[in-house]
Amino acid sequence: MSQQVYFFGEGRADGNAEMRNLLGGKGANLAEMTNLGLPVPPGFTIGTDVCTSYYDQGGDHLPEGLEEACRTAVARVEKILGHRFGDREHPLLFSVRSGARVSMPGMMDTVLNLGLNDETVEGMASATGNPRFAYDSYRRFIQMFGNVVLDVDGARFEHALDAMKAARGTTQDTDLEADDLRELIGQYKAIVREEAGRDFPQDPWQQLWDAVMAVFRSWNNDRAIHYRAMHGYADEWGTAVNVQSMVFGNMGDDCATGVAFTRDPSTGENLFYGEYLINAQGEDVVAGVRTPRPVRAQAGVDDSLEQVMPEVYAELMQVVEKLEDHYRDMLDLEFTIQNNKLWMLQVRTGKRTGVAAVRIAVEMVEEDAIDTRTAVSRVEPEQLDQLLHPMIDPKAKVQVVAEGLPASPGAVSGAIAFTAEEAVQARAEGRDVLLVRRETSPEDIAGMEAAVGILTQRGGMTSHAAVVARGMGKCCVAGCGQLQIDEAGGSLKIGDRIYTRNDHLTLNGSTGQVIEGEVPTLPPSLDDNFRKLMEWANEFRSLNVRTNADTPADSELARSFGAEGIGLCRTEHMFFGEERIAAVREMIVSRTEDQREKALAKLLPFQMEDFEGIFTAMTGLPVTVRLLDPPLHEFLPHDAAEIDRLAMELGVEKSEMHAIVESLAEFNPMLGHRGCRLGVTYPEIYSMQAEAIIRAACRVKKAGHDPRPEIMIPLVGIDNELDRMRAVVQAKAEQILAEEGVKVDYLVGTMIEIPRACVTADEIAKKADFFSFGTNDLTQMGFGFSRDDAGSFLPSYVSGGILPSDPFQSLDQNGIGKLIEMAIELGRAENAHLHLGVCGEHGGDPDSVHFFHRAGLDYVSCSPYRVPIAILAAAQAALADSASAVATA
Amino acid sequence: MSQQVYFFGEGRADGNAEMRNLLGGKGANLAEMTNLGLPVPPGFTIGTDVCTSYYDQGGDHLPEGLEEACRTAVARVEKILGHRFGDREHPLLFSVRSGARVSMPGMMDTVLNLGLNDETVEGMASATGNPRFAYDSYRRFIQMFGNVVLDVDGARFEHALDAMKAARGTTQDTDLEADDLRELIGQYKAIVREEAGRDFPQDPWQQLWDAVMAVFRSWNNDRAIHYRAMHGYADEWGTAVNVQSMVFGNMGDDCATGVAFTRDPSTGENLFYGEYLINAQGEDVVAGVRTPRPVRAQAGVDDSLEQVMPEVYAELMQVVEKLEDHYRDMLDLEFTIQNNKLWMLQVRTGKRTGVAAVRIAVEMVEEDAIDTRTAVSRVEPEQLDQLLHPMIDPKAKVQVVAEGLPASPGAVSGAIAFTAEEAVQARAEGRDVLLVRRETSPEDIAGMEAAVGILTQRGGMTSHAAVVARGMGKCCVAGCGQLQIDEAGGSLKIGDRIYTRNDHLTLNGSTGQVIEGEVPTLPPSLDDNFRKLMEWANEFRSLNVRTNADTPADSELARSFGAEGIGLCRTEHMFFGEERIAAVREMIVSRTEDQREKALAKLLPFQMEDFEGIFTAMTGLPVTVRLLDPPLHEFLPHDAAEIDRLAMELGVEKSEMHAIVESLAEFNPMLGHRGCRLGVTYPEIYSMQAEAIIRAACRVKKAGHDPRPEIMIPLVGIDNELDRMRAVVQAKAEQILAEEGVKVDYLVGTMIEIPRACVTADEIAKKADFFSFGTNDLTQMGFGFSRDDAGSFLPSYVSGGILPSDPFQSLDQNGIGKLIEMAIELGRAENAHLHLGVCGEHGGDPDSVHFFHRAGLDYVSCSPYRVPIAILAAAQAALADSASAVATA
Repeated sequence: MSQQVYFFGEGRADGNAEMRNLLGGKGANLAEMTNLGLPVPPGFTIGTDVCTSYYDQGGDHLPEGLEEACRTAVARVEKILGHRFGDREHPLLFSVRSGARVSMPGMMDTVLNLGLNDETVEGMASATGNPRFAYDSYRRFIQMFGNVVLDVDGARFEHALDAMKAARGTTQDTDLEADDLRELIGQYKAIVREEAGRDFPQDPWQQLWDAVMAVFRSWNNDRAIHYRAMHGYADEWGTAVNVQSMVFGNMGDDCATGVAFTRDPSTGENLFYGEYLINAQGEDVVAGVRTPRPVRAQAGVDDSLEQVMPEVYAELMQVVEKLEDHYRDMLDLEFTIQNNKLWMLQVRTGKRTGVAAVRIAVEMVEEDAIDTRTAVSRVEPEQLDQLLHPMIDPKAKVQVVAEGLPASPGAVSGAIAFTAEEAVQARAEGRDVLLVRRETSPEDIAGMEAAVGILTQRGGMTSHAAVVARGMGKCCVAGCGQLQIDEAGGSLKIGDRIYTRNDHLTLNGSTGQVIEGEVPTLPPSLDDNFRKLMEWANEFRSLNVRTNADTPADSELARSFGAEGIGLCRTEHMFFGEERIAAVREMIVSRTEDQREKALAKLLPFQMEDFEGIFTAMTGLPVTVRLLDPPLHEFLPHDAAEIDRLAMELGVEKSEMHAIVESLAEFNPMLGHRGCRLGVTYPEIYSMQAEAIIRAACRVKKAGHDPRPEIMIPLVGIDNELDRMRAVVQAKAEQILAEEGVKVDYLVGTMIEIPRACVTADEIAKKADFFSFGTNDLTQMGFGFSRDDAGSFLPSYVSGGILPSDPFQSLDQNGIGKLIEMAIELGRAENAHLHLGVCGEHGGDPDSVHFFHRAGLDYVSCSPYRVPIAILAAAQAALADSASAVATA
Repeated sequence: MSQQVYFFGEGRADGNAEMRNLLGGKGANLAEMTNLGLPVPPGFTIGTDVCTSYYDQGGDHLPEGLEEACRTAVARVEKILGHRFGDREHPLLFSVRSGARVSMPGMMDTVLNLGLNDETVEGMASATGNPRFAYDSYRRFIQMFGNVVLDVDGARFEHALDAMKAARGTTQDTDLEADDLRELIGQYKAIVREEAGRDFPQDPWQQLWDAVMAVFRSWNNDRAIHYRAMHGYADEWGTAVNVQSMVFGNMGDDCATGVAFTRDPSTGENLFYGEYLINAQGEDVVAGVRTPRPVRAQAGVDDSLEQVMPEVYAELMQVVEKLEDHYRDMLDLEFTIQNNKLWMLQVRTGKRTGVAAVRIAVEMVEEDAIDTRTAVSRVEPEQLDQLLHPMIDPKAKVQVVAEGLPASPGAVSGAIAFTAEEAVQARAEGRDVLLVRRETSPEDIAGMEAAVGILTQRGGMTSHAAVVARGMGKCCVAGCGQLQIDEAGGSLKIGDRIYTRNDHLTLNGSTGQVIEGEVPTLPPSLDDNFRKLMEWANEFRSLNVRTNADTPADSELARSFGAEGIGLCRTEHMFFGEERIAAVREMIVSRTEDQREKALAKLLPFQMEDFEGIFTAMTGLPVTVRLLDPPLHEFLPHDAAEIDRLAMELGVEKSEMHAIVESLAEFNPMLGHRGCRLGVTYPEIYSMQAEAIIRAACRVKKAGHDPRPEIMIPLVGIDNELDRMRAVVQAKAEQILAEEGVKVDYLVGTMIEIPRACVTADEIAKKADFFSFGTNDLTQMGFGFSRDDAGSFLPSYVSGGILPSDPFQSLDQNGIGKLIEMAIELGRAENAHLHLGVCGEHGGDPDSVHFFHRAGLDYVSCSPYRVPIAILAAAQAALADSASAVATA
């Protein structure tokens, strides 16, 4: 049998920080701190492999040799501390804690004060001179042991405690006297006997064996299994068990306990930041019953640790310096002071805000603590989002009334608008409104633009509302099922609360919370630290990052964030302007090609104007324009009165207009007459768009800029579709270039978003200059999931572990990824010059970016606000690549 | 230069029937007949490779050496016939005809009477003693040559002819005299000069060269290109040119022309069947201006060829015997009699009805003319359909008022029913009705069952109406866009005609025609010939054939057709009975699991009863039952009044019921909450179904039968889905087996119909006993085509050559087929015992069956009426396989 127990104490540990898979995170760091000579209460860690053996052997007895190894380790602790386990006079007590290789907060079990029994409690009472403390500790131990180890319902103990307090005429635990507690101990033992069918074990060793097995078992409790399924952690890992001598921060006024960060976790400022409580246990700091005091002296504070216990404070500062110097990262610490002696109980990497993460990484480079590779690798790309959007002031008190999906980050307040028209009106009057809709459609675009934020009842993270809002960089909470919207009545019901147009709500698009009233927010901060980090990231990455943008303003914004072109410019969003939609509708209801061309001619100047602006903003960089994609039905009104009005406007019989609208309705519009299928049926539409693109490029070129148009045919599933549409586009483009007398290079390629396109990519590649993977639709069709309807089952798929994550948020690398890899391989084999990118929402998801890097794409494209995230993720992917190349070399 | 010209004449030909790729079908058969010593007018064929050279060399001159080769061949013809090309006294005339390797009827050009000019026409006039005939031939030649070779608008000639007739006070060509025709010839030549800018060529050789090039050019006319694209024929094949000496059936009463079949093409009876006309040209027989007379003597006929020209008839019979003996198939012949001499102009395999095809194949085996392999290979599987359904009497006069898709074959007449209720009512009253709907949904099932036929305005070949109708073996015309249905008003408008409930229509489900009124039909005939052919087919095939059936009656029918089990039993169709739907709806609107289980308990006995009947009918054979698949919304009513009524029935608030119905509506139901996603969300549904299946199997077993249930989980895209659902099904199944105390073997497998399932088939195969490819949904999702919406573009995709055929009718082997091949490879590699089948509509499509055979599936499954078709196709696939194995051995 290999080593089962890893000792740590008095400057020497069997383990170290590298051994977290074997010792768990907590055990590995306790060993590391011990090795650094820091004051760590001695103890030992039982390896995760022992947990695995335990299960392999049936899960009802400890593996052979473990008891002996524990006895040896306990003896070493006894020798160091001069107390003995089970000793009547100076009893040694242990905490027994779980500790997996990854943090699984609150999932598994802990037992404290192990070693107390009817005899040792008396020793503790006399040794501490504090009988009440001793009995209270014993009482708590019986309760915890009974609950965790013996599976006794915790409520039974609580009832007994409440009865005792009632009998004493109090509601506070602290009002109970030593005798009361002694009486309670008797009752607790009776409860254990009754419920567990066995006596509470008086033998400390029996207590230890039972507790270790209980921790092992807690690895497989329901919530831990569920948590692992959710996070994709393996059941085989097992948990370590940390058996550590107890120290007490609650034995008097020369005792204390605290938690601290080596730097400010909110701002990243290089200032020690901590809180402590005199005469308290760790849980008191967390529970918030008493208000913790600052560790460091500061203005207006006279009871900081620095002031109250200056020597201990000085020692703590030395420890902190040593730790940061060693770990070279911002750390999260737990410490306890027992009778003026400092003990370190835990160290781990500190959680931090995005702002802090960037600042700490950059400043640590400047301090020569880390190199730029490390700095770039260390910041979570998703955290950058916090730097780009306003945040709810963490100090504000908020009343959360509903929760939806965090569809587009940021925080905004506004009154309620129920229709796009109301939102536009409010904007004109200078009022901030939130557009609140069951779901949005392209018809709502103007309203979405006018609103400060968007809230929808239906739809997922890639619903229309979510996608468009992210594109606009506008705060959005989507799929908030609790909303009951009465558009006609102008009211919004959430639970029992009813809101009207006069009421304000606040959205937190980063968490999905819907908050009542107006709430103060903090502005975003794009500082020098951010810029430095981005520069370093740019040095490492090989993947280009473009943006999805449909307007000159978005283009400029994205360019300022580092975008290297436009990967997806959706032309249909341009169709919703007031003057334009009329021409669009005229085109749709046309009965002949002639009528249709007339209507298209009206749209041409608008489209040209749009493209001129975008090409100018993106001069020198590629701009991929997708030709018309959505089904025509989306551009028509859907309620009877509006259809009648449209009939009048266009001079068509009302009944005919209704018939037209109805004839365009589809059972499954996602799989209907859209994308290049429109182009095949009505080539004159794509021809007009090609003219607008190329003519705009010519004009922009004549104005001295460098336009680089790439024309993208959407929804190709058959090589012949691309062949036909390419011919239409090229014919028109060559005609326009000849007319304008300018040379502009352009590419013609296709979106790959149909499963069939992936498996026939060799045929399609013959006719394409580029492929751009449309991973949203590819995920929809590959899975057979409609993003707008999946809300009824997808959340439970993720929470239930059927899928590791929402495939619309993070690419399903196993399945959809395989289709993409096939397409890349087939496409490149046929056409070595094929340029490859991705323009789905996944282009801004860090995990997906890693996949796209490995798959060998040339670029990813994402909404402007995700450009920095994609840049950082791309750099990290390249660094991970070179690291694994080094590892295998 | 290789051989360009292939001579045939006087018992010797350079080519033969095997050389159709080089000589075209017509040329190869002319050569073959010549070699057989039959009387074929001598001539020569220019090879298809010359056509290809012609295009390679720019398409404006004949390839080098061709003229010389032609002159040599013409000289040989002159020697045989004793006439000379361009001779003033006995001019030799030629026909110049195209002839590709496959028949492309009417696509390319022909020139007749070539060799006539101002001089030779006089020779012809005096040699035949029939100046009118000579001038009329010359006039026709100028018109044809002008039109085909010189591209002169044919209308110009027609106008001149009309003017001449008007001047002579007649409307008949035949009333024009020789002088009139001579005058017209002058006018025709003037037209040529004017329109073509050159004189009509008098030099017969020039005529020949021009005509040959014109035939070459006609290979690339628009309609020929379009035809090839539609049929997937290669542009590179090119056409041959047949230059053959002219013979005339219209030179007097000792002349005649006729067409014939060696056996009756309608019934297959072994009786010569032909028609002829005295003193006529081939086109007269076809055009129907005069009524052709029978070739063979028969009762009530005194002018048959047998009677009128007994010697020529006897010679013809010898020719026919020789030909059938040689070709060993029923043949289609063209012959001409010139001055009592028989000439054979064409021979080819004769087209025949399904009944005839089967009878001829079987009788030829009995005559020892062919072996059973040949018989099985020779019948088109699709033709069997004609044997299984009533047909419109070919002799009936019909008024076709609209045309839709031939969704389910057969022919029926009935009055119009606009709703399912009306149809049920009519059935109860003993009236035959057609159910006429915009489209059908599962709610219409009872009405579809009650109606004799189904007609829909929307939806394709795999729409609900089409699929269900085929399953029921019921005649259906789907997607008939011309219908305007006013359900409320009870009227159907087609063009200007309006029909009400009192009017009768007739549907031809084999052609898609909608016919006014009642039309007589012929009953189907499943005779001994059919049974023999099926027996032979069974000997050759390796692929099993199952059926898709949801009722005991369908199961028995399919079994009588040879089905070897059920590949798809859809449980949801069972949910629509009157008593059942109430329980289904109660289940759907349940708010708690308890309520749901109560409702499910009501359904259980119904489901059990269904399965008991099916297992009994299919004793000893596998029955694959698919668990609930469609979205729940399909089971709820959709109009407001019905929703209100349902609310009352179930004791739910009306507003709540509306909210429930609305909350279940989906944007893209095809991609929504359906299939195993329902099972994951509501495991109790699948659990109830598993109980019904297993308990029914136990009861049937106890009754002495041999039930073989296979439980199929639909719409799996993720291995975990199958894993969960398998666990639910197995747990319940084991419980029931224990309760019933019977041993029944059962399998649990999945439909593979999601693209992601194909690319992750290895993972899914670990948990599956079988895969059944659901090619309908796989086609929908693989292409991103909704079958219900694709009507707006798919027909134009097929007619425009973007797709070779409708992928819902014949499997897209290139794309969807690749996904299937991947799934087979991945699945079998992981699970060697995996059983593989297909249960989509493609299982009954012959081309698709060939693919499934090659791909290595174990079985196909199709609707009962397609079982014989699948059996024959499977046999042909196996024969093709062994033939190609022999070829490569």
